[in-house]
Amino acid sequence: MAQVNEDYLKLPGSYLFSEIARRVNQFKEENPMADIIRLGIGDVTRPLPTAVVEAMKKAVDEMGQAETFRGYGPEQGYEFLSQTIIDNDFTPRGVKLSPDEVFISDGAKSDTANFQELFGVNNTIAVTDPVYPVYVDTNVMAGRTGFPNELGQFEKLVYLPCTEENGMKPILPQTHVDMIYLCFPNNPSGVTLSKEELKQWVDYARENQSIILFDAAYESFIREENVPHSIFEIEGAREVAVEFRSFSKTAGFTGTRCGYTVVPKEVKVYDAKGEDHSLNSLWLRRQTTKFNGVSYPVQVAAAAVYTEEGQKQVKETIDYYMENARIIREGLEQAGYKVFGGINAPYIWMKTPDNMGSWEFFDKLMKEVNIVGTPGAGFGANGEGYFRLTAFGTRENTVRAIERIKTKM
Amino acid sequence: MAQVNEDYLKLPGSYLFSEIARRVNQFKEENPMADIIRLGIGDVTRPLPTAVVEAMKKAVDEMGQAETFRGYGPEQGYEFLSQTIIDNDFTPRGVKLSPDEVFISDGAKSDTANFQELFGVNNTIAVTDPVYPVYVDTNVMAGRTGFPNELGQFEKLVYLPCTEENGMKPILPQTHVDMIYLCFPNNPSGVTLSKEELKQWVDYARENQSIILFDAAYESFIREENVPHSIFEIEGAREVAVEFRSFSKTAGFTGTRCGYTVVPKEVKVYDAKGEDHSLNSLWLRRQTTKFNGVSYPVQVAAAAVYTEEGQKQVKETIDYYMENARIIREGLEQAGYKVFGGINAPYIWMKTPDNMGSWEFFDKLMKEVNIVGTPGAGFGANGEGYFRLTAFGTRENTVRAIERIKTKM
Repeated sequence: MAQVNEDYLKLPGSYLFSEIARRVNQFKEENPMADIIRLGIGDVTRPLPTAVVEAMKKAVDEMGQAETFRGYGPEQGYEFLSQTIIDNDFTPRGVKLSPDEVFISDGAKSDTANFQELFGVNNTIAVTDPVYPVYVDTNVMAGRTGFPNELGQFEKLVYLPCTEENGMKPILPQTHVDMIYLCFPNNPSGVTLSKEELKQWVDYARENQSIILFDAAYESFIREENVPHSIFEIEGAREVAVEFRSFSKTAGFTGTRCGYTVVPKEVKVYDAKGEDHSLNSLWLRRQTTKFNGVSYPVQVAAAAVYTEEGQKQVKETIDYYMENARIIREGLEQAGYKVFGGINAPYIWMKTPDNMGSWEFFDKLMKEVNIVGTPGAGFGANGEGYFRLTAFGTRENTVRAIERIKTKM
Repeated sequence: MAQVNEDYLKLPGSYLFSEIARRVNQFKEENPMADIIRLGIGDVTRPLPTAVVEAMKKAVDEMGQAETFRGYGPEQGYEFLSQTIIDNDFTPRGVKLSPDEVFISDGAKSDTANFQELFGVNNTIAVTDPVYPVYVDTNVMAGRTGFPNELGQFEKLVYLPCTEENGMKPILPQTHVDMIYLCFPNNPSGVTLSKEELKQWVDYARENQSIILFDAAYESFIREENVPHSIFEIEGAREVAVEFRSFSKTAGFTGTRCGYTVVPKEVKVYDAKGEDHSLNSLWLRRQTTKFNGVSYPVQVAAAAVYTEEGQKQVKETIDYYMENARIIREGLEQAGYKVFGGINAPYIWMKTPDNMGSWEFFDKLMKEVNIVGTPGAGFGANGEGYFRLTAFGTRENTVRAIERIKTKM
C-alpha cells in the first residue's frame, strides 16, 4: 500500500492567496459592478523592457536554426549569464564570486523551496514572524517540524517576532539554531537592515556554525545608503550564507521565470562525524539530478537586463513602482495609519486601525472601498493586526486606491 | 551546527554523463585531430519547428506590451495548454482527462525527480535495472534506501532485471512493492510493452494498492500498433498511475524546457490510519508551494506543437530520427551485434562483443573509431555488458558512425 508523506498532512489545506481569491470571487459575484483595485499579491504589471524582448526573440530565432540550435545546457545555467550577473550585481559592490558559485534557476521561489533538501531533518530552523510562507511550508513538508498550534505556529520551528516594538527587525535567537531564513528588503514588512545590523546575524552564524538562507529578491528596490544589497557585502558571510535573487520584481519576470542562487564555496555543513561538506557541491548535485536548466531564450532575456538599454528601462520601471510606494506610504500616514516599509521595498506594511483582525480589515477594505490587499495574519501569528499593500499596481489605480482610503474610510 | 542531509552522501560522486565528458575531454586533449562522433547523451540536434518559433516570438512580444503582459500564471500551467494536450494526446486514444489532472512543468526530469516527495519514507520502491538514474538518485536523496553494494545497487530498492533472457522486459516483483517506476518506450533499452503486458502491471498495482510512476517521455517515437502511448489506455490505470510526458524529444525542447505530468483524481495514497489521500491534491500543493509555473512564452511554444503546421514539422523531425534509428539498428545487426530497441524508440541498446565490460567498450569505441556512446553500466548493474547509442545525431554523422563500426572494428 503506497503511503503518503504524512508531513504534507500537517499543512493547513488552504494557501493564503487561494483564500484571498475565493473571497474576492465571492464578493464579485455578489457585486458584479464593483470597481475592485488589487494591491494584494506581489505581482508586477509593467511589461518586459524592450531590450529584454528583443534579445529573447533573437534567441528564439537561434533555436529555430540547426546551426544555432541549443539543446540541453548546463543545469546550473550558462556562463554568459552567471558572469554577467557577477560583473553587474556583485563586483561593483566589492563582492568577488566565480561563475560556479552562481546557479541560474527558474526563480527564487523554487530555490528557496528546494534548498532545504540539502540539510538533515534534525536541524533547528529560525524564521521571522511574519514570514514568506514558502520557507515554513517547505520545511513542514520535509519533516523538520511538528504540528501547528492554534496560532498556526509549527512545533520545533523557532519564530523570531517582528513587531512594532522592534521596528519589524527580528532580534537574534536566544537559543541555538542551525538554519536561519532572512529576507531583506523584507516581504511582507518592507523593512531593511543596515550593514551593522546584518553583521550581527553573520557573526551569530559564524559563532554557531549556522547557515543563513538570505532572500534578496527585492534588493533592486533599495534606495538608501548603508543598506546592503547582498549579504556578501558583510565580512565573513561567504562562510555562512547563501543568497537567493530573482529577476521577477527587478525586471518583470514573474511570468518569464528566472532567478539565481549564490552558494560560495566556503559554506560548509557537517555530518554526524563532524566532517564538513561543501554546500556548493551538494547544491550542484541536487540541481544536476533534479533540474535540467532554464530555457535558453529566458537566460538570454535575463542577460539583456544588464545591457545599457536594459538597465535604463529597468530603472524606469522600478522608479515607477517606488513612486507608487511613496504615494501609498505617505497617503496612509496622512490618513493616520502607522506604516512600515515602502522606502527601500515595494511593500507597505500597515497597522490595522483599533487592533482590528487582519482578515476583518481585509473584508472591510474590500467591501467598503473595493480594495484588495493581503491580510498580515497570512504571513504568521505576528502578522495579525497588520495588512500588506504592494506598489506593483498601475499609477492610476494606486492613486485612486489611496484616495478612496483617505476619503471613504 | 548545520547538519548535512546524510542521504546525499550515499550517492557516488560522479554522475554518468560527467564521467563520459571527462573521458572524452581527456581523449580530445591527447588526440586533437580526432573526428569524434557523439551518439551518447540523449540530446536532440534538429531545431525547433518554425510554427513553434513563430508562436513563441509572438508571446514574447505580448510580454513587452502592458495590455498583453502576463505576470504569475497558474503554477500548474495555463489551461490553453493543458486542454490542447488533452484534445491531442489523450482524447483521440479514448483517454478522458480534465485540465486539472494535467500539470505543466519545466520538464519530465524535474517531475520524475520531485514526485517522490509526496510519498512516505518507508515505501518500498521497484525500479528496472538498467534504469534512468534520476529515479534511483532522487529516492536515495530522500532517504528511501540504504547504502549501495559493490554493484552500485542500493539496499531496500527492489531491482527488476531486464536481460537478454526476458527481452529487456521486467517481470512482476516477487515481493510486495508500493511504488514502481516504469519507462516505456524504455530509456536506455528502447523496448516497449504491448497493451497486454502493461495491463499486468496495472493489475499488480491495483491488487497491491501500489502506484505506477510511468515515464512516457518517448511515446511519440512509437511506430507499431498495439503499443500503448499512454498508460491510461489500460483499464484501471486511472486508479494507480501517474504519467510523465515531455516536449524535449518530441519537439526539440531540451533547451526550451517544457513537459507535463498527468495525475488522475482517482489515484490515492494512504496514511498510517489507512485513510486515503488524493495524489492530485498533494501534487497541486507541492507545485503551488515550490514552483511558480513555466515561462508563458514557453507554454505558448508548447501549444504550437499541436497546430497543423507544428504537427507536420514534428512528424518530419521524428521521422528523421527514426530513420537514424533504423540505420543504426540494421547496421549493427549486419555487423553481427545483438541489439534491442530502435523500432519504437530513439535508443538502440547493443550487447558488447565477447562480454566486454561496458566502460571498456566505451573506451575501445572512442579510441578505435572515435564514436562516443553511453556505457550500459551507467544505467545499473544489469546494464553491464551493454551499450546505448542514440538516434538524435545528424544523418551524416549517423551514417558515418555505422560505417566506421562496420568497417573498422
